[in-house]
Amino acid sequence: MATGHHIASWRHKDVPLENGTNVRYWANLARIAERGKLDAIFLYDGAGLPGMPLDQASRGDRATFFDPMTLLPALAMLTDKIGLVATSSTTYDQPYYVARRYLSLDHLSGGRAGWNLVTGVNRNEALNFGAAMQPHAVRYARAREFADVVKGLWDSWADDAFVMDKQSGRFFNPDAVQPLDHHGEFFTVRGPMCVARSPQGQPVMVQAGGSEPGRELAAETADMVYSVQADLEGAKAFYADVKSRMAKFGREPDELKIMPGVYTIIGRTAQEAEDKYGELSALVDESVATALLSQCLGNADLSPYPLDGPVPTGLTTIAGTTHLKLLLQIARDRNLSLRDLAVEVAAGGYGHWAVRGTPIQVADQLEERFLTYAADGFNLMPATFPGGLEDFVDLVVPELQRRGLFRTDYSASTLRGHLGLARPRRKVTGRGKSAVREIA
Amino acid sequence: MATGHHIASWRHKDVPLENGTNVRYWANLARIAERGKLDAIFLYDGAGLPGMPLDQASRGDRATFFDPMTLLPALAMLTDKIGLVATSSTTYDQPYYVARRYLSLDHLSGGRAGWNLVTGVNRNEALNFGAAMQPHAVRYARAREFADVVKGLWDSWADDAFVMDKQSGRFFNPDAVQPLDHHGEFFTVRGPMCVARSPQGQPVMVQAGGSEPGRELAAETADMVYSVQADLEGAKAFYADVKSRMAKFGREPDELKIMPGVYTIIGRTAQEAEDKYGELSALVDESVATALLSQCLGNADLSPYPLDGPVPTGLTTIAGTTHLKLLLQIARDRNLSLRDLAVEVAAGGYGHWAVRGTPIQVADQLEERFLTYAADGFNLMPATFPGGLEDFVDLVVPELQRRGLFRTDYSASTLRGHLGLARPRRKVTGRGKSAVREIA
Repeated sequence: MATGHHIASWRHKDVPLENGTNVRYWANLARIAERGKLDAIFLYDGAGLPGMPLDQASRGDRATFFDPMTLLPALAMLTDKIGLVATSSTTYDQPYYVARRYLSLDHLSGGRAGWNLVTGVNRNEALNFGAAMQPHAVRYARAREFADVVKGLWDSWADDAFVMDKQSGRFFNPDAVQPLDHHGEFFTVRGPMCVARSPQGQPVMVQAGGSEPGRELAAETADMVYSVQADLEGAKAFYADVKSRMAKFGREPDELKIMPGVYTIIGRTAQEAEDKYGELSALVDESVATALLSQCLGNADLSPYPLDGPVPTGLTTIAGTTHLKLLLQIARDRNLSLRDLAVEVAAGGYGHWAVRGTPIQVADQLEERFLTYAADGFNLMPATFPGGLEDFVDLVVPELQRRGLFRTDYSASTLRGHLGLARPRRKVTGRGKSAVREIA
Repeated sequence: MATGHHIASWRHKDVPLENGTNVRYWANLARIAERGKLDAIFLYDGAGLPGMPLDQASRGDRATFFDPMTLLPALAMLTDKIGLVATSSTTYDQPYYVARRYLSLDHLSGGRAGWNLVTGVNRNEALNFGAAMQPHAVRYARAREFADVVKGLWDSWADDAFVMDKQSGRFFNPDAVQPLDHHGEFFTVRGPMCVARSPQGQPVMVQAGGSEPGRELAAETADMVYSVQADLEGAKAFYADVKSRMAKFGREPDELKIMPGVYTIIGRTAQEAEDKYGELSALVDESVATALLSQCLGNADLSPYPLDGPVPTGLTTIAGTTHLKLLLQIARDRNLSLRDLAVEVAAGGYGHWAVRGTPIQVADQLEERFLTYAADGFNLMPATFPGGLEDFVDLVVPELQRRGLFRTDYSASTLRGHLGLARPRRKVTGRGKSAVREIA
């Protein structure tokens, strides 16, 4: 992913040769995004090689990448304002570790941390933890409890806990620390967290799932949703559905920002954008495209089906069900062959909403989705880095600013501030000093 | 620990009020150490509050601290040459995650990462992972296997794996990636690692245990040992013992650097050092000292014993056995009361070798240990930060340089380089492309 969201981006003549292990390369991308006053950079993750045969994986740049929570603290030092969102899975990690890492990042970035909660859809990842892929419902039950534990641990300390009185010898007020004392189905976590409450109160919670349990989890716990929404009507329906679920959790619709992915190819003229698309498409290896499609369909075995035939119906998966359904619908709606769908996925952003054209054309489409309650913002997925990101920042952002749709400078210094989200009050559990004292 | 290794350092008049959540504060410490041309900074860790009652913990600055592997990538961006060593436990984490994080840090720091492997001695940490403290032997059996998995994963990729040929479309050579295929008592890990081999080949492995299994693990797998050695004869015996164990693993004595902790209080005159010691000792709260001693004795319950009486014999622990034995021996050798030992631990570096005096006196003692094969170097533990570190860098380092005992500038840019350790060759397992292909 280092060189762009197009599967063959690394082969494009304008794209630098990078294997993703150079921190200065990532810092350059982060600074371009910051120059464009974007809310945040957003790092995907999965702790394993891509879920495709090695021969196909070796034709792409996605087999080696930084641990995102090791990369982001470094980028925090090389940027000033932009939010820093990483992805961490709830399926193999421990909530105390995840809670602590994001709290630490929030401190050292001055309140710019966000956690994209995923349950993991890569079979290769599971094998690195001695596990088989768990069914969707089990992963989400664990994720639900994991998120509760993390959010509880983030509230271990009161904001004003530190008296630091040299005279009396009291460093912090013991009444200002509460344990969690969580005993659940998946986790037993005593707490308290060994990191003070952070600048944002709680780091921003991001959710990417679009399934029924994913929507419920987002409506209850997320500050931001990264969704896959190819068409306008589907995006509006998803937006309305998730926002409508919030009331029963006592939340206002504005407390959750829905930001669908948008895959972009931008040209100074429409023809230039088409040419870029054509150049990139010509670089796609058909066997890689098919392997990628299989991966997006939940590791479905596509070998029995002819590439020029229809996309088989009846495929099922325990991985990401939302993505599977979406791709099958795209194929049906547009009458695509298996080969067509594979190329669409590889060259067009994996089923994400793809826009290409001039800055005006791109801005028009973003504006439409924004004004029709299909999106509160967007998760930008340029086909190539750094060029595709520079195109957006230098050409589309000024157009959005002219229309009064986007900030001309940061007005806040935290990610919550950029998103217009309030700093959450600490939830006091009533388990105070005496409960902590017991555990020492 | 943010303000120094003395338990009451934060109360000293010359020490800044810091709760450890300010990255610029840590960066200043790292830069002072780098100005002194030290090998590395070394961050202790334990994922929980200190193992003492909250009332006592609230009188110190050790209850909240950064996750070290979130802090070090930030410090990597704010320093150029100094090594970056963090502590991670093998008891609750997963080897794939730990391997990936240190490899990522090694990449982004240009080869300065080190992993201090511990098994965890804090009962509060165990409770944050739904676990009871495991017996010493179980923790070390797991640690042994954990280290094997991590080192194996670090060798997943050949150094020259990346061909990045835009013309042919081959990004890396699939023959240059090997899975691990580990099936052990504690872990099943398929691999390969999703991060390329790093600048050091393998990040530096540090071991802190001094027990029998700890020494064996160090002799076989460690590049550096951080030991607790109060007296010269004990330090020489430990040094000789660990080095002598290396031959059976096919290793040369020079391939492992033994670096005992040294707790320092430095003055321009001997009297100034004594005064600092006196000022700091006067700030120690007796109940904190006793709680700290109990913690160092493996959470022993000391309440039945009078403070002015002898240190009880027959205490046992499943936590750190080395430290317990050492403290009991110190008490016996010097005929200390329980109160005396508590103050010694709190004010004198927890049983670590403590030196105080002028720069000449401190340099004399370091020189003696270095020249008599008691140490290859030292793990510096200043009583206070930043002053105690500045004293060492500005007063003792020049004295050691005058004697030809310490570098006047870095001659390398990696931690292995600073330590005089070779870059390890990659171990090829013979499980190549075909094995990886199976797992996709």
